Amino acid sequence: MPVTTRRKSFGSDNHSGAHPAVVQAIADANGGDSPPYGADPWTRRAADDLRAAFGASEALFVFNGTAANVLGVSLLLRPYEGVICAESSHLNVDECGAAERVLGSKLLTVPAPDGKLTPEIVASRLGGRGDEHRVQPRVVQIAQVTEVGTCYSLQELRQLSDFCHAEGLYLFVDGARLANAAAYLECELADLASGVDGLSFGGTKNGAVAAEAVILMREELVPSAPFLRKQQMQLGSKMRFTAAQFIALLENKLWLHSAQHANAMAGRLAAGVAGIPGVTVRYPVQSNAVFAQLDPARITALQRDWTFYTWDERESVVRWMTAFDTTEEDVDSFVAAIGATR
Amino acid sequence: MPVTTRRKSFGSDNHSGAHPAVVQAIADANGGDSPPYGADPWTRRAADDLRAAFGASEALFVFNGTAANVLGVSLLLRPYEGVICAESSHLNVDECGAAERVLGSKLLTVPAPDGKLTPEIVASRLGGRGDEHRVQPRVVQIAQVTEVGTCYSLQELRQLSDFCHAEGLYLFVDGARLANAAAYLECELADLASGVDGLSFGGTKNGAVAAEAVILMREELVPSAPFLRKQQMQLGSKMRFTAAQFIALLENKLWLHSAQHANAMAGRLAAGVAGIPGVTVRYPVQSNAVFAQLDPARITALQRDWTFYTWDERESVVRWMTAFDTTEEDVDSFVAAIGATR
Amino acid sequence: MPVTTRRKSFGSDNHSGAHPAVVQAIADANGGDSPPYGADPWTRRAADDLRAAFGASEALFVFNGTAANVLGVSLLLRPYEGVICAESSHLNVDECGAAERVLGSKLLTVPAPDGKLTPEIVASRLGGRGDEHRVQPRVVQIAQVTEVGTCYSLQELRQLSDFCHAEGLYLFVDGARLANAAAYLECELADLASGVDGLSFGGTKNGAVAAEAVILMREELVPSAPFLRKQQMQLGSKMRFTAAQFIALLENKLWLHSAQHANAMAGRLAAGVAGIPGVTVRYPVQSNAVFAQLDPARITALQRDWTFYTWDERESVVRWMTAFDTTEEDVDSFVAAIGATR
Amino acid sequence: MPVTTRRKSFGSDNHSGAHPAVVQAIADANGGDSPPYGADPWTRRAADDLRAAFGASEALFVFNGTAANVLGVSLLLRPYEGVICAESSHLNVDECGAAERVLGSKLLTVPAPDGKLTPEIVASRLGGRGDEHRVQPRVVQIAQVTEVGTCYSLQELRQLSDFCHAEGLYLFVDGARLANAAAYLECELADLASGVDGLSFGGTKNGAVAAEAVILMREELVPSAPFLRKQQMQLGSKMRFTAAQFIALLENKLWLHSAQHANAMAGRLAAGVAGIPGVTVRYPVQSNAVFAQLDPARITALQRDWTFYTWDERESVVRWMTAFDTTEEDVDSFVAAIGATR
Repeated sequence: MPVTTRRKSFGSDNHSGAHPAVVQAIADANGGDSPPYGADPWTRRAADDLRAAFGASEALFVFNGTAANVLGVSLLLRPYEGVICAESSHLNVDECGAAERVLGSKLLTVPAPDGKLTPEIVASRLGGRGDEHRVQPRVVQIAQVTEVGTCYSLQELRQLSDFCHAEGLYLFVDGARLANAAAYLECELADLASGVDGLSFGGTKNGAVAAEAVILMREELVPSAPFLRKQQMQLGSKMRFTAAQFIALLENKLWLHSAQHANAMAGRLAAGVAGIPGVTVRYPVQSNAVFAQLDPARITALQRDWTFYTWDERESVVRWMTAFDTTEEDVDSFVAAIGATR
Repeated sequence: MPVTTRRKSFGSDNHSGAHPAVVQAIADANGGDSPPYGADPWTRRAADDLRAAFGASEALFVFNGTAANVLGVSLLLRPYEGVICAESSHLNVDECGAAERVLGSKLLTVPAPDGKLTPEIVASRLGGRGDEHRVQPRVVQIAQVTEVGTCYSLQELRQLSDFCHAEGLYLFVDGARLANAAAYLECELADLASGVDGLSFGGTKNGAVAAEAVILMREELVPSAPFLRKQQMQLGSKMRFTAAQFIALLENKLWLHSAQHANAMAGRLAAGVAGIPGVTVRYPVQSNAVFAQLDPARITALQRDWTFYTWDERESVVRWMTAFDTTEEDVDSFVAAIGATR
Repeated sequence: MPVTTRRKSFGSDNHSGAHPAVVQAIADANGGDSPPYGADPWTRRAADDLRAAFGASEALFVFNGTAANVLGVSLLLRPYEGVICAESSHLNVDECGAAERVLGSKLLTVPAPDGKLTPEIVASRLGGRGDEHRVQPRVVQIAQVTEVGTCYSLQELRQLSDFCHAEGLYLFVDGARLANAAAYLECELADLASGVDGLSFGGTKNGAVAAEAVILMREELVPSAPFLRKQQMQLGSKMRFTAAQFIALLENKLWLHSAQHANAMAGRLAAGVAGIPGVTVRYPVQSNAVFAQLDPARITALQRDWTFYTWDERESVVRWMTAFDTTEEDVDSFVAAIGATR
Repeated sequence: MPVTTRRKSFGSDNHSGAHPAVVQAIADANGGDSPPYGADPWTRRAADDLRAAFGASEALFVFNGTAANVLGVSLLLRPYEGVICAESSHLNVDECGAAERVLGSKLLTVPAPDGKLTPEIVASRLGGRGDEHRVQPRVVQIAQVTEVGTCYSLQELRQLSDFCHAEGLYLFVDGARLANAAAYLECELADLASGVDGLSFGGTKNGAVAAEAVILMREELVPSAPFLRKQQMQLGSKMRFTAAQFIALLENKLWLHSAQHANAMAGRLAAGVAGIPGVTVRYPVQSNAVFAQLDPARITALQRDWTFYTWDERESVVRWMTAFDTTEEDVDSFVAAIGATR
């Protein structure tokens, strides 16, 4: 069956297929019988490896990023407590209300320039504490990489986490693209988890297939997690095939090399368009995404041959994403095509 | 990494790995970029094939059986309506309350000998219709194959569906092992869907990996389904890898051959133990499961070397399941081992 | 506007109006402005009185018995935990699924002869603890008086509560008719709360109007309770009018005298029908309810002139309830009418 | 028991007690037995009167405004659909997340100057229709009177309702202070319901006690409503005492006279402070609320003797509310007190 796009997609890192090592890992895990629901050696090893890499209490596998976020947050909330998150956050915008349905909880959204929350922004949403009429803020949820491709520096992360804990708040990190943040910040996964109460570590956008990990940094969250995962319909019976993918990603830091490459391709793309008149890069390029503003007519023309999304129609901003399998030639052809529009 | 059980497991058909054709299909689907979230040619083809096979309005993919049941039922219920199902049903017993959490709905359970509902049993749960104090019955949920390995005959199915529709009830079928029912009943998938409002078609227990289909038999259920799937956290971005598995299962009716084989192995096992004193087969063997009653001491002895579950401790009943990859030698060795206990 | 029943209803204790002292209390509370949402002196005093009477940590007012049960239980459950209760319990049968909707939790129902749970019955529902596929039992919910008019003795209550706590379970008591239990058992309210984690104290069936109290016996439940009450839509702005009713009920133990009277009227009714051939009292008469079995034709004849409910159509059992305002003449006329049927 | 505030409260119209006619109606309803759960003549008459006044399909009673809003909206939503409402709406801010908990639905909030939504504002929230990742807008919820005391003109209401229906949206009106809007707009209740799909009619802030009505303007919403009310824990057994209050309010348009008086007192207050230097009225005074900006020190000084809330601390805006029992002397004394601060 032929693929549908002749040219490399810049639409999203989930337009890519799987990394060959991931497919191989799936095939290798197919060696006969194994206990189901994660009681298999692959799951044990992958969870061990993730706990070690993050300095974590526990690591659990789920099928997608929606679930990683919802499961993670569900461990931290009582029914009348809410989640402070950016208006632009995936949790708020792109989950078809999964948080409200599954958690039954309110998202306390705040505007966030550059996609990032700061102690000041969080503080602006802390009104009404102790007032029974108001949802009580309990969790601050951020994305690292953010939805606009920016990264929290380790210092920003530390300041936010210190603020949260001083205020009796938990900090949960949506790490669908955590690998790209680690690559950009040149730090360990454990550095990104330091001071954080829980986070996700995305496999899918790093070359895996329907594989995300929820990383718990507090021992007291561990006992409830398997039950909530099951209730949230994320317990896979043949879990070894999910876990094996993480083993492949973790081996020799494949996850890091893939992320470094994707980031480099975004950097190349940003550099390439820097000289093209009428194309303005919108946010600092700190991961595998380039947001650019250009004339609507040029966008329309480009989208005839190339796959990418318009991020903000009103402001005429588009998003270009690279992946582990984006090549220099892909980028250069795309830059040339952009340059050819007017 | 070595597998954990040296001998073939009789614990469940999800102890098996994936069918080699399924792994090959995953590898073949890895051919570059593709639109995400099911807008890819694999998903289109798999859904087309399933619609054709079932005479259905729509087919959607989800990650596991919990979700297939919950999503299916969620399309049929208003908030104050409930689901009539067997006390022993997977939906009631084995989903850690996913139905109550995600649907917010009551399961109106009824005792069901042989795991089957009849019009009479359903009728016994129809009290209180129109009374605002009572949850209103709306959906009848059954499993085909049932949790105890029995099958509804096509006539039983038709009688139940006629009764449901005469009573203004929907009928939803948990088809985690639908393939085994089709093999036993020697009928088409469309026959199993006839008169039914929605059903699931299980891939995982038939040799797939985290792949189940929800089959909708009523056009008016189709528009809501993608939204509810997303909200229920079952929308995979790289859906082609799930859909490709179904393409493999459907090609040349691999699903049927696998089910026929698994059923035959259960038949062989039942026949094998028929002559062993003190071992009583408990339910009619109509699929890939054999339930047997035998002395607790013999159970304990067998479980030292063989993997299977005790189904009912009080009654000393065990469940032995076969799969697409159970061999005649596996069965014969197991029968010999059973015969050797006393 | 005329009342609808010329004869005293034996349908339910909520067919009665309000006790005159309750109406007077409402009028007396109408003395000008007062802080809303319970920050008024009536609420303070009523809560103080209730805390003293029960030896409780907190007392909160809600509008009805559904809410008292759901709010109480909601304080004790995590999302994947369930409530062991009688199949016949109001929570299970008569709340239109409020528990499943508002709590999102499963009710783990058990058959209960005489409406009562015992340690043995509860133990039968404790399977699957620690298994992530199963809802984890956490709360045992009983009714005192039960749905069939029986009372737990203080010894039975103690045994059940000891068992629950030994098993890591909470015990919550639906006290919609707690007053009648105290009257029957000749004990203090505090005795009925001893060893219990939370309970409700019904006002409505004792002569109040839309007034129920939730009594918390554990300090750690107190902080969450106001938020959950508000979220469950049970926070009244003019709460003084609810609280004032409880002040009236508590003054000189009006609640007790009303309950004693109602119980006495049920006793008189049971004694009256004892000599009528073909009328069999079904459960021990331990409160203000008499359940009786008699010929369906006699039931139909009686219901032409008298108001009462058929409890169990198949078994031809009816329920007759008395109230604070049932008179000896009401009972005697009713007994005579019953005796006149054949 | 003494009331707690010596001076008339300007805190809220729910600081007032009950209108004497309401208390009398409660006493009058106490005439013996009556069928419970609304099957009584008071409920029948009150519902009849409300249906007639609104030209409505149905009227149902609930205990408070939270429930009126949630029940009303719940009749209009499927699980993946959301409610467009003002950021400042009571539903969003002041219900402790009841909407998210009970509905499981997202509120799609929009900034609303003067508390009002317009077709343009609503249109700004209609992005993502048909996209399974996004909650689908279905209900527009507004308050009439708004949270800042303003009223939609009948023309504004018609424009909004036309827009909603053209867009396939329902319009639901939070009428906690609907009486005040009718008084201000000098129109019939039916005018306020025209073009609307459902609305609430608040009794509590108009002199009742825990009594609100949900008015349904579409026949097809009627069958589900009693079940959802019960499930949402708002079905009162002695409903006649709630309904009787509405009979009192409706008799000779007591509701209107009370609202006219309250509005007049707000007008007097606004006129009174118009001449006081440093006091700026913030929103048009179109009901029984005056929002004013004045120096924080003056606010603090006033709050020593007078009860009212600071609405916006940052902007130094306070809210002064009048009620059916606010007198001209109350207002004049308060104006004098305000004038005396500096």
